[in-house]
Amino acid sequence: MKTLKEYALITEKRLNEIIPVLPENSFEPENMPELLSRSMRYSLLAGGKRLRPAMLLAACEMLGGDIQLALDFACAIEMIHTYSLIHDDLPGMDDDDMRRGRPTNHVVFGVGQAILAGDGLLNMAYEIMLKTAMNAGKDADKCISAASEIARGAGVTGMIAGQCADLYQEGREDGSEAMLRFIHEGKTMAMFVGAMRAGARLAGADQKSLDAITEYARAFGLLFQASDDVLDIIADPALFGHSVGKDVRDGKLTAVSILSLEGAKARVEALLKEALDAIRGFGEEAEFFVRLADTVAHRDH
Amino acid sequence: MKTLKEYALITEKRLNEIIPVLPENSFEPENMPELLSRSMRYSLLAGGKRLRPAMLLAACEMLGGDIQLALDFACAIEMIHTYSLIHDDLPGMDDDDMRRGRPTNHVVFGVGQAILAGDGLLNMAYEIMLKTAMNAGKDADKCISAASEIARGAGVTGMIAGQCADLYQEGREDGSEAMLRFIHEGKTMAMFVGAMRAGARLAGADQKSLDAITEYARAFGLLFQASDDVLDIIADPALFGHSVGKDVRDGKLTAVSILSLEGAKARVEALLKEALDAIRGFGEEAEFFVRLADTVAHRDH
Repeated sequence: MKTLKEYALITEKRLNEIIPVLPENSFEPENMPELLSRSMRYSLLAGGKRLRPAMLLAACEMLGGDIQLALDFACAIEMIHTYSLIHDDLPGMDDDDMRRGRPTNHVVFGVGQAILAGDGLLNMAYEIMLKTAMNAGKDADKCISAASEIARGAGVTGMIAGQCADLYQEGREDGSEAMLRFIHEGKTMAMFVGAMRAGARLAGADQKSLDAITEYARAFGLLFQASDDVLDIIADPALFGHSVGKDVRDGKLTAVSILSLEGAKARVEALLKEALDAIRGFGEEAEFFVRLADTVAHRDH
Repeated sequence: MKTLKEYALITEKRLNEIIPVLPENSFEPENMPELLSRSMRYSLLAGGKRLRPAMLLAACEMLGGDIQLALDFACAIEMIHTYSLIHDDLPGMDDDDMRRGRPTNHVVFGVGQAILAGDGLLNMAYEIMLKTAMNAGKDADKCISAASEIARGAGVTGMIAGQCADLYQEGREDGSEAMLRFIHEGKTMAMFVGAMRAGARLAGADQKSLDAITEYARAFGLLFQASDDVLDIIADPALFGHSVGKDVRDGKLTAVSILSLEGAKARVEALLKEALDAIRGFGEEAEFFVRLADTVAHRDH
């Protein structure tokens, strides 16, 4: 088992190979247009913690799988995560100009090209997973299962369902706890579940292990989002007087708006306990995941 | 072998099942949001000739394959085609308000939801192909190959490459025949090639058959786009005086703008001959494809 930083480095190295740097403004048959490669790389290689690929690789390794087989799936899930950020930032969605301290994709490349960069990352994620499956010989079944887990997490009953509910809810006054749960489970949790289950599938995990890591991933995903909602309030030094976090400005339904700040903080602690309980059975092998949940629950940025 | 209309009906019936009608404005766990289903169905079930799925099914059947195995791949390619139309119509891309006589997706559902409807169709296409592969037993390899062909046709060296070049070129004065070819091969040809090769893979076709149908699909794709460019001029009753087709207004690089109207018409005939030559070896079995190319070359709308 490696650290988050080590998994992130392996992933980033491979992402760099998958989407090549090409001669400027070239449109060569059989290659992707350089403009497309440049716009995809701009967002994909802009830093980021690489949480989802790391969790996929760590789950695979914890359950005895081969992370060489898993590496392109880790890259695929990061490409899908990145496409979702590019599309989320677009006008008509969240309309954000800045991300990770840099102008967003559509500010640099224009709205049309940003849409295509997102589409390209999503399609290419499947292209590389299918290619890995074709070359996997006796492991082809594991690859198809893993790709299916990722597709479900990213899809119309997973991440896209959550984005749709989030968009529908924005600015409405009738937010319920059920709707909050639907949004968090879709937007945030589903991809963590997809990542860890994909890693487990690639390791050929048994049902008991699969159930345990699924339970962890569910609690972790909700924990991640709840602590994000809390940080939107308390990490902002300018909150004094009235709330000035972006979620509040956008009229978003959040754990804080439904549960209050104290309620949301208590929720984070309860979910942390749930996550840790789920993987207790793996003992020291689960060290990566214990540390990860604890860090995310107690981060301050 | 069936007619285009028969293949279209089979595909449409199955598409109707794949994306269900749900209780209005419902957001139920495990289901897709009704709003998402409604916006996807709006564009997916809005008519259309179902050319790509029909060609996939016909290729599979011509080469001795099972169209039951192929049906969900046919649906997947139509879902991918539809997502590309929804995204193409967005502001920032072609910014079209009408398609097939109805308001475009973003006019009805808003830009954000239209982006998600497109993303949802693309992701779901892979979800159903992977699900079919998981349940295909000994045919799993054929399914992975077929999905890979579709992914390549739709992807960053296929359709998305063409859309990127098209967007880059719009309004520029420096259009070349090489750029025109890059755009047509990407935007139009790649998905026809992907459809037919996927059908052939599902039939377990040998290399010789695969080469022949690839050659046909390449000529057909270029023929389809060249005749589309011609129709943009001559199908418009208001062309008299100066050209008033939409491509011209948008400053698009087309077969007509590069080759002149007469040159483009001659190109259509040359490509028709190329397409028919490519499949001569299949004799009467290729009747569907002979008729199809002839119809597209000589259509007037």
